[in-house]
Amino acid sequence: MKMDGKTMGRPRTPEREAKIRRVLSFRQHDLTLVMANIHDPHNVSAIYRSCDAFGVAKVHLFYTTTAFPHLGEKSSASARKWVESERHKTAEELMAALRAKNMRVYATSCSPSAKPVGEYDLAGPAAIIMGNEHSGVDPELLPLVDGELYIPMYGMIQSFNVSVAAALILGEASRQRLLAGKYDLPTCAPEELDANVQAWLKR
Amino acid sequence: MKMDGKTMGRPRTPEREAKIRRVLSFRQHDLTLVMANIHDPHNVSAIYRSCDAFGVAKVHLFYTTTAFPHLGEKSSASARKWVESERHKTAEELMAALRAKNMRVYATSCSPSAKPVGEYDLAGPAAIIMGNEHSGVDPELLPLVDGELYIPMYGMIQSFNVSVAAALILGEASRQRLLAGKYDLPTCAPEELDANVQAWLKR
Repeated sequence: MKMDGKTMGRPRTPEREAKIRRVLSFRQHDLTLVMANIHDPHNVSAIYRSCDAFGVAKVHLFYTTTAFPHLGEKSSASARKWVESERHKTAEELMAALRAKNMRVYATSCSPSAKPVGEYDLAGPAAIIMGNEHSGVDPELLPLVDGELYIPMYGMIQSFNVSVAAALILGEASRQRLLAGKYDLPTCAPEELDANVQAWLKR
Repeated sequence: MKMDGKTMGRPRTPEREAKIRRVLSFRQHDLTLVMANIHDPHNVSAIYRSCDAFGVAKVHLFYTTTAFPHLGEKSSASARKWVESERHKTAEELMAALRAKNMRVYATSCSPSAKPVGEYDLAGPAAIIMGNEHSGVDPELLPLVDGELYIPMYGMIQSFNVSVAAALILGEASRQRLLAGKYDLPTCAPEELDANVQAWLKR
C-alpha cells in the first residue's frame, strides 16, 4: 500500500513512525563491529541481524583478501537495511575512522594475551573486530588494537561460529550498556534523530 | 592412528585424556536446554555446539509435531557426540525428568508476562525450553513452566534466530555460573567422572 509518492512500499502510520523513533533512540553510536574478511553470506547476514537487535548503528567493513559476499534477498538479510555500513580499504583508514570516534578497538583472538570478553568495558566507546571464518582477524590489524578478547568456552569443540561469537560479544556489550543506562536516552542530537526518523520512514 | 583395539580412530594420548577430563569437569549437570520441535538441522547442530561450549551435559528432545532433523556428517554437527540427548514423548514425561533433577523450567517467549533473561537465576538448577522456528514453544508446555524469558532487543527486526537465542541464553547462564564458581569443581562424583573419561576416550 503506497500512501504518498515519498514512501517506498510501507505505510507511514503513527505506529511505524513511533517504532522507528524508538529504535533510533536505542541506537548506540559508540558501539560498532568490524567485519574483517568474513566470507560466508549467512554469517554476514546473521551479524547484521544481531547488530540491529542490540542497537549497533553502523558496522565497518574491511574486505582486503575476501570479496564482500552477495547477501541475497532473504528476510534474514533484511537487517542490513537498518544498519549503516562504512567500507575501508586499508588498516590505516579503518583505524583512523574508529579513533576519530574515540573508540577502544578490540580483536577477537585466542592468543595467550587475550582476555575474557567480560573483563572489558564495552559500555564505553568500543569497536570489536571479527575475523575470517578460517584465518581469524588479519595479522596486520592485531598490532593496532587496544586488546584481544575471547569468549570463555568449556567444551570439546574449540571455536564458535563467527556469527554466534558476534552475537555473544554484542550480548555482553548490551548487558553492560543496559546496566549503564545507555538505552535510556538517545546518543545523538534531537535534530539528528528527527532527520533519521524521516529518512528511515522512506526505506 | 589407532593405539589399541579399544580406541576408535583417535590416539589415547595423555593430552587427550587430560582435555577430556577437563571438559567433563566443567560439565554442568544442573543446566539443560530443551529442544522443542526445532526443525532446521543447522539450528539443531548449532545448539549442540553451544551446549558443548558452555558445558551443558545433556539436552532434552521434545519432538511431538516435527521430526527430529537429520544432522549430517559435517564438522559443525560433531558437537552432538559430546552432549547427551534424552528424548521425551509427552509433556508430562519431559517435565517429570526435569523436576526429578530439581530444575526450574523456563520457556522462551515474547508474551507480556515474560521477563528479561538476566533477571532469572540461571546459576541454580535450570532448564530452558527453546521452541520451533515458526510457532515458538508449544502451547501445551507453557502452563507447566516456572517462568517465561526473553532476550532484550532494541532493533527493527523483532526476533533472533533460535540458535542465536540459545547461545545468548546459555552465554548468560555461563556468565552467572562463572561468577558463582560453578566451573571450579566437577558437579558429579569422582568415580562417575573417571568412568566418563574412560567412556569418552572410546568415542
